[in-house]
Amino acid sequence: RVNGQRLWDALMEMATIGATDKGGCNRQALTDLDKQGRDLFVQWCKDAGCSIDVDSMGNIFARRPGRNPDLPPVLTGSHLDTQPTGGKFDGVYGVLAGLEVVRTLNDAGIETEAPLEVAVWTNEEGARFSPAMIGSGVWSGNFDQDYAYARTDKAGKTFGEELERIGYRGQTPAQARPLAAAFEVHIEQGPILEAEEKQVGVLSGVQGMYWYDLTLTGQPCHAGPSPMEGRRDPFMALHRILDRLYKLAAEFGPWARATFGDIRAEPGSRNTVPERLVLAVDLRHPDQEVLDTMDRRFREIAAEIAAETRVEAAIRDEWRSPAVAFDSRCVEAVRASVAELGYSNKEMVSGAGHDSVYISRVAPTGMIFVPCEKGLSHNEAENADPADLGAGANVLLHAMLKMANG
Amino acid sequence: RVNGQRLWDALMEMATIGATDKGGCNRQALTDLDKQGRDLFVQWCKDAGCSIDVDSMGNIFARRPGRNPDLPPVLTGSHLDTQPTGGKFDGVYGVLAGLEVVRTLNDAGIETEAPLEVAVWTNEEGARFSPAMIGSGVWSGNFDQDYAYARTDKAGKTFGEELERIGYRGQTPAQARPLAAAFEVHIEQGPILEAEEKQVGVLSGVQGMYWYDLTLTGQPCHAGPSPMEGRRDPFMALHRILDRLYKLAAEFGPWARATFGDIRAEPGSRNTVPERLVLAVDLRHPDQEVLDTMDRRFREIAAEIAAETRVEAAIRDEWRSPAVAFDSRCVEAVRASVAELGYSNKEMVSGAGHDSVYISRVAPTGMIFVPCEKGLSHNEAENADPADLGAGANVLLHAMLKMANG
Ligand SMILES: NC(=O)NCCC(=O)O
Ligand SMILES: NC(=O)NCCC(=O)O
Repeated sequence: RVNGQRLWDALMEMATIGATDKGGCNRQALTDLDKQGRDLFVQWCKDAGCSIDVDSMGNIFARRPGRNPDLPPVLTGSHLDTQPTGGKFDGVYGVLAGLEVVRTLNDAGIETEAPLEVAVWTNEEGARFSPAMIGSGVWSGNFDQDYAYARTDKAGKTFGEELERIGYRGQTPAQARPLAAAFEVHIEQGPILEAEEKQVGVLSGVQGMYWYDLTLTGQPCHAGPSPMEGRRDPFMALHRILDRLYKLAAEFGPWARATFGDIRAEPGSRNTVPERLVLAVDLRHPDQEVLDTMDRRFREIAAEIAAETRVEAAIRDEWRSPAVAFDSRCVEAVRASVAELGYSNKEMVSGAGHDSVYISRVAPTGMIFVPCEKGLSHNEAENADPADLGAGANVLLHAMLKMANG
Repeated sequence: RVNGQRLWDALMEMATIGATDKGGCNRQALTDLDKQGRDLFVQWCKDAGCSIDVDSMGNIFARRPGRNPDLPPVLTGSHLDTQPTGGKFDGVYGVLAGLEVVRTLNDAGIETEAPLEVAVWTNEEGARFSPAMIGSGVWSGNFDQDYAYARTDKAGKTFGEELERIGYRGQTPAQARPLAAAFEVHIEQGPILEAEEKQVGVLSGVQGMYWYDLTLTGQPCHAGPSPMEGRRDPFMALHRILDRLYKLAAEFGPWARATFGDIRAEPGSRNTVPERLVLAVDLRHPDQEVLDTMDRRFREIAAEIAAETRVEAAIRDEWRSPAVAFDSRCVEAVRASVAELGYSNKEMVSGAGHDSVYISRVAPTGMIFVPCEKGLSHNEAENADPADLGAGANVLLHAMLKMANG
């Protein structure tokens, strides 16, 4: 069994890097604070006897040797970057639970057959550089590295130059190698486990998610003398499109999601009808077919309302992450570990994207969830119960041992 | 009669400063380009024999002496600053028509009883520094100069430091002095004169306009695992408030206006429900009582929908400019001049704020409109007919002469 207190202490120490006034964390990808967090993790892993490798995407792999160096490793990991107003657990927990597994095995003097690895994936959040999960995405062959390097933040800085600047552009090419299995433990980021009073979630997959930029272009005119009738006002289209997309999500039931995380107006002058609104749209559904229907309906709604309001609507696909089903052997290893340990549990699908989405394309993959307070995440108030975090790390330990030893 | 070709040439020369690709002008207040425009105007006025005075708000007064230096002057003028995607005529026309009046009187060797002045008012647009008409607003005692100096643009630069930087912070205190009368000629910025085929608008007043910031605060959460039901999503409040405000404008008839020129989301991350949306709201009506009703209803609507969506709504008053009625003697001088000159005309109210709104509080004031193409303004495609611009300048010339000599 892992040392829950040591895991908690590591989480709290990491949380001091980028700590916010409201008790959260702002440690965005490839910032100076991200570098500090990475440096601390690397130091801890070295102290635990691991060797470190950093690849050309800044992904970090800390390796604990196995008895048989020729066997492919069993990997775990997640991310250290946060949302701008993020919490202390999203991602970080998965990384430090991996470290805790290594420390626990060291304490108990247990050697595994296959090597174990703890990974830190770069820019999982997609908050500073869109899209999300770009470190694991390049590693698994889903994105070109050149595409990733050219991504810019709002200040116009590129991923490539920021990676170089913080000193985490490694020599090893970012590409998949054989893995015996990959696991990731994460807070649920939703309210289900807490509501149903279950301590552990056994994940069968991840819902599909599509990201878009919707651009509405009208005709700028003066706020005073221009009659309402003749206007081609992007806000007139916007409010109707929002209304219809919320109704679309309602129509496709409790699992459909429609989220608008960002918007900007151009030219953005108080007394001028904007020429242009750019809205970030995020649609999700666990059933790939339903998500594709939502995608089609979104395009129809935008076109219909644009025509009615005499505004132009253009949709740019920013990211498409189809629904994922995890490897049955990995799911079974998690299920069996939960049973051995006697935790209350629920089989479920993840509503959030995780690095495991991309890893699952090149290696057998599974995931474990633990509850978080009120289901809150991407929020500085994000919180979790140390006992639940310990339970998740125990399941991770057992599942990794199963896959590493046979 | 004025020289219409010379007026047009001056407009086109001024329009080269800040010219945009789409044929408009981006010469925002207190930028380097604003300085260039001011320098050109000052040079032209000096060449026309005027003395120049710049006050502590950067307002420029070019004076043509009268026979009797003790008489209060007859003033005209407008502004040289533009919207970020502005046109070649809004404001500039009123300034250069004033210069054309001076040049015409010089050509004809006409001396007036009272002195004449052509004014350039600083930051009329309110686009770079809110609120609008701040130069004439301080001069007429409506705003404190300290308040004006402390206004910031989006980059955080203050009005005061930018005024100093471009070298237009003058010695003369910005405060009203006695004026015999003040006139302003401006493009209509709306479609009425064009639609009714009238060449000149005789203005009886300006509609009231209120500016607000509406802040909607919800609870940030993750775009995936958070069920739609439990969200406190500012966009859910936004679309319903927009819908109701457009309906409010429709309810109060063809003269009511509801405009949303700018919006921002915080933290503004694609996969996070925003904590906060800040929307710029502009409500207008020519009838002060109706505008006050709209103001009250806006507050009720925001509160009602905020409660229903479990979002907080806060309204900050950014600017309140009540409806204005112009001085009857000035209106009569414009009316009589139009009649003498035989132009088709219409008595009307301005839908846009103008420096004359503030000047009318401390001096007898009147305004003249000319049509603009398709009623478009605050748009790079803004255009006007040289013949109409000449007609407006002729009316200005006659009205000024009436007040300066009698
Ligand atoms: N867990 C997480 O925040 N992932 C980012 C991708 C997503 O938006 O789901
Ligand atoms: N004419 C003009 O654009 N004035 C600015 C104030 C307003 O928004 O009406």
